[in-house]
Parts: sequence; structure tokens; C-alpha cells
Amino acid sequence: MSPKVLICGELDWAQEDAKQLLQDFAEIILLSSPTRAEFLQGFQAGGKYEGVVAIYRDNSSAQFIGNFDKEIIQGISSSVRWIAHNGAGYDRIDVHECKACGIMVSNTPGAVDDATATTALYLLIATFRQFSAGERSLRALNWRVTGTTQTSRDLTGHTIAILGLGGIGLRLAELVHAFPMRVIYHSRNKVANAPEWCEYFEDVEEMCAQADVLSVHVPLNKDTVDLVGEKIIRSLKRGAVIINTARGKVIDEAAMIRALEDGHLSSVGLDVFPNEPEINPRLLEFPQLTLLPHMGTDTKDTEYKMELRALQNIRDFFAKGRGNDLVSEHK
Amino acid sequence: MSPKVLICGELDWAQEDAKQLLQDFAEIILLSSPTRAEFLQGFQAGGKYEGVVAIYRDNSSAQFIGNFDKEIIQGISSSVRWIAHNGAGYDRIDVHECKACGIMVSNTPGAVDDATATTALYLLIATFRQFSAGERSLRALNWRVTGTTQTSRDLTGHTIAILGLGGIGLRLAELVHAFPMRVIYHSRNKVANAPEWCEYFEDVEEMCAQADVLSVHVPLNKDTVDLVGEKIIRSLKRGAVIINTARGKVIDEAAMIRALEDGHLSSVGLDVFPNEPEINPRLLEFPQLTLLPHMGTDTKDTEYKMELRALQNIRDFFAKGRGNDLVSEHK
Repeated sequence: MSPKVLICGELDWAQEDAKQLLQDFAEIILLSSPTRAEFLQGFQAGGKYEGVVAIYRDNSSAQFIGNFDKEIIQGISSSVRWIAHNGAGYDRIDVHECKACGIMVSNTPGAVDDATATTALYLLIATFRQFSAGERSLRALNWRVTGTTQTSRDLTGHTIAILGLGGIGLRLAELVHAFPMRVIYHSRNKVANAPEWCEYFEDVEEMCAQADVLSVHVPLNKDTVDLVGEKIIRSLKRGAVIINTARGKVIDEAAMIRALEDGHLSSVGLDVFPNEPEINPRLLEFPQLTLLPHMGTDTKDTEYKMELRALQNIRDFFAKGRGNDLVSEHK
Repeated sequence: MSPKVLICGELDWAQEDAKQLLQDFAEIILLSSPTRAEFLQGFQAGGKYEGVVAIYRDNSSAQFIGNFDKEIIQGISSSVRWIAHNGAGYDRIDVHECKACGIMVSNTPGAVDDATATTALYLLIATFRQFSAGERSLRALNWRVTGTTQTSRDLTGHTIAILGLGGIGLRLAELVHAFPMRVIYHSRNKVANAPEWCEYFEDVEEMCAQADVLSVHVPLNKDTVDLVGEKIIRSLKRGAVIINTARGKVIDEAAMIRALEDGHLSSVGLDVFPNEPEINPRLLEFPQLTLLPHMGTDTKDTEYKMELRALQNIRDFFAKGRGNDLVSEHK
């Protein structure tokens, strides 16, 4: 029996590439389990997923079988050796359990950088310039919102603090450098390949004290839940803006809302929320916010790149024993 | 009697600067005529505007006295020698009549470039990524719009055609070069100081044939009314986008709407309209459009720069006989 690759999620753009890349190594089968119980049953002896060695996964599979938590990982661990997650953030996979079970996990860094950083730039322009309130006013046949000029700012010459200078943060830095904005950043370590105009701050709060806007680009994990809380938010300049295209839970939403209420934050631009697709209704009451329904990587160009990159990891796993994009917890 | 400068419009940010700049040369007086008739009366012998040599003007004055048309120009021509218009576009001033009456007109080039180009970049991202439809869906509590990924594109690697590579067009070129996009342009003449990566096309339609998006940056005058009409629109690639932050009347709106209806244009991003603040209701029926209520220069940073630049022209007129920003028709 030839090894199998299970496509667990959407493969919209790279179906032909999947055949090309994997035909020498494995049979491709599709997820066909409407429930978690059926999914797990498929991995038992004689089940339809018997012999699945690698899984291509994206978050859309969660609507059928839920997150790749401890139960799922243990249930697939007898045969699966590689999970190629399609996405930068892999917080819906229990990577520690994967490690314990000998399953390697890859993500798709790089492929998402351009589209996600562009989304952050959009949110930055929208909040600084109050464009989304402007468009709502026009569409309500009221033409302009009065008074927005008092609070609207040019990006040029202002300071952006980037929290997490990985691929996405670095890409955003390049885009805003064109204005230019002053770019300051904090990461666990100084980034060796950062351009010299990106100023490193070891101390987050010292960085925030100089920032007109904070853009969040850290992965969600146990160390980053509520990372942007009362302390960091209050260390920003009064009237600052926060942009989040990473994960909703990285920000303490209650602390953020308090800061919007008392004007410490002038606005926030969010593509992500703690309990998507649920939105805290309080957020909708601030007219100056820009809120997107998690569209950060939502382009055909980028989705194709992501699918291809996830598949390439599976191919490399078969051909060379491991893919290039092993997640940091497994390195 | 000392010469007078009449502030004919809003001077919100640079009032102190106005005093500093002009105190050695002229008395500053404010527009206090609710109607055109009273305004013109003020310029007659013994009227309150007698002795006004220079006028600081912006478009907000039109709500009281209308545009600076032939009647106004003739009415002020006995004393006024300089009109410092606050804005890049001066289509509401009859510059030919000014020339005939010996009145010089300046605008505020440069000051508006950054804010207007940023607005064009916003419209470009919004239309390519379908973000404004996304936000409307979220705010209607529907989370995402389905199917947008099929039509969403990254900016990176696509081609932008810039119609009119003046200050604003050149600034936009710099901003999109960061992605990079390929930048092609048409102006009356090849622009000598354009970077080498801006490719000049003598023929507009040849340029359009290569463009994923056309961004319009020409002033409105008799030669540019309806310039972007059927012929130019149809010479764009099928599925292209048009961005307009210049003036509504530069585009033939009926031709643009026809192209949206039959899909030749996938979207348009507009900050300007032919009959502001009226909007053609047909535009509101296309969900993929991004429409702003003429907010191109609407930031406190830029409005301050514009006010200062207009005032500087008046100061230079007094001090040196002419300001730096004489409009092209008067050169």
C-alpha cells in the first residue's frame, strides 16, 4: 500500500501542483469526515485514513473536526509523521503533543508576509486618516464626517513600533519606510538581517513610549496570550493607535477597550479578534475603528503561494526526510 | 492705508504663522460676506475690502460667494494682484480671466503630494483586496463576504499606470515601488526627474493595455474634462481598476459605470466625484467599490503645510514681487 497524504482543508488553487509534486511519493486523499468521531475512526485499522503519513491542513477543517488538539494528535499518531499547516499561525495545532508523538509540523512563513503586511498598512492608513468612517458617512449619503481633520494624521514622519520583527513585521517595515515612517521594533532578540534604519529596543515599554502606532506581529502561544495588556498599552503615547493582524488573543481586549474609552488610544485597526467570527459588540460602537473579518492573507495570489508552500513541505518530507518550514518549537 | 490680505476660506492651523509672515507687509482681514453681492460690494470704493492686494483662498469660501469665476475676478481686479489658492487643484478659479486682469494665481504643489498619494494607495489596496466590502460585512454582523478571495489580488508584481506624473503621481510611484509594483506612466512629456524604474509611454492607450490599475493625477481643465473616457477605459486590461484622487470630471462617469456593469473594470476607488457632494446613486450599488468623500488632503499635518505654503506665496509676493508657486497657465 502506497503512503497517503490527507488533504484536510481547502486546496483551491494548487490542485494540479499537488498531483505533480506528490505523484512519485504518495496517494492524495481528501477529508470526508463530517465529524471528529468519524475522522478518528478513519485512522483505526481498516479505516479510510489508514496509511496516511502526511496531512495538509488549514483552519477550515476545524468546522468539521475541530482544532488539532491532544485528542486528534493522539488519534492520528500511529501513522502520521508530518502535518503541513497552510498558514503562518499554527495556534490551532497542539505542537507540544505533536512533538511528544513524533509528528513534525510545518507552517508557511514567507508566503503570507506580503499580503499580511499590506493588510497592516491598510489598517494603518485607514486609522490615521479615518477613511473607513469617511466611507460609511458617504454611503449613508452624509458626504463627509465633520471634524476628522482635527484628528487625522499623515503617516510620514510618525513613528511605528513593530512588535515582532519576523517576516511579516519586516515586510511592513519596508512598506512604511517608503513614506518614510521611523521604524522601531522589539523582538526576543535583535534581528541580524534587519535594515539599519530599524531601531531595536530591548525594552518593550521604552519602545512604546516613542510610538505613534504599535503594530503586532507575534505568533499566539502561551507566552503571548494577552501580551499587549494594560502595561504595554499605557506605555504608548496618548492618542496612539494599535494595529493587529496577528491573532486577537495577543491583545487583552478589555484593556484595549478601556484605553479607547478614555482616549489613551485614538483608534485601533483590527483584522483579528479573540473569538472569531464573534466580535465584541462594544468595538462596533467606536466610529473611528477599522475592523476587517480576518482577510490578512485573503488573495488568490497569496493563497496559491501558501498552498504551494505547504505542499512543498510534504514533498520534501517524502524526498528528503523533512520540510524546510519546521515550526520553531520543533527546531 | 496699509495693504490688506483677505483670508477667504479656512485658516485653521497657521493663524499664528500668518501674523508672523505678513505683519511687516499687510493687514490681515477675514471674509465677512455671506453672499456674492455683499462680497463684490466690499471691493467698491469705501467698501470693507478696499485696499485688498492679495487673497488667501480655499474652496470652502464657495459656499458663501461661489467660485472665483469671471464676475468675481473682474469685481476684485481693481486692487487684487495675487490670489494664493490653498490646494493643488485650482479649477474653481478662472485663471484665464485672472491673467487678463493682471492677477497672479498660486497653488500649493508639493504640500498635498504625500497625503493625496497616500489616499490613492489606500484606494488601491482597498479595491485590490476588497477590504471595504469586508468591513461592511463585518459591521453588518455577517463576518466575511464569501468569494472575495477569487477576485482579491496582491499589489506586488502588478502594473500600475499613472496618468500625470506630477508631484502626487511621483509620490504614489515611490510608495508602490516599495512592494514593488511595476510603474508605467503617461504625461504630456517624459518627466526628466522620474526614477529610471518609471517607464514612460507616449501613447496613453499603449500604456493602458499593460495596466492592472490606472491612477489619475491630472488637473481639471478644459483639456482634461472626460479625458478618461470610453477609449482609455476600454484600452485597459479586462478586470482592471481605476483610482481617482484628482477631480471627478476628469473621468467620463457614464463610461466608467458601463465598464463596471459589463465587468471590463473590476472595481474603482474614488475620492472625487463630478458633482460633489452629490454622488451618482448608481455607484453605491456596486459593493466592490471604495468611495471616499474627498478626503485626499484631509489631515492636520497636510492642511497646516498647505496653509503655510499658500501664505508663503503671499509673503513672497510682497517681499519679492512674486510667489514660487505661480500656476502653470501664468508661467
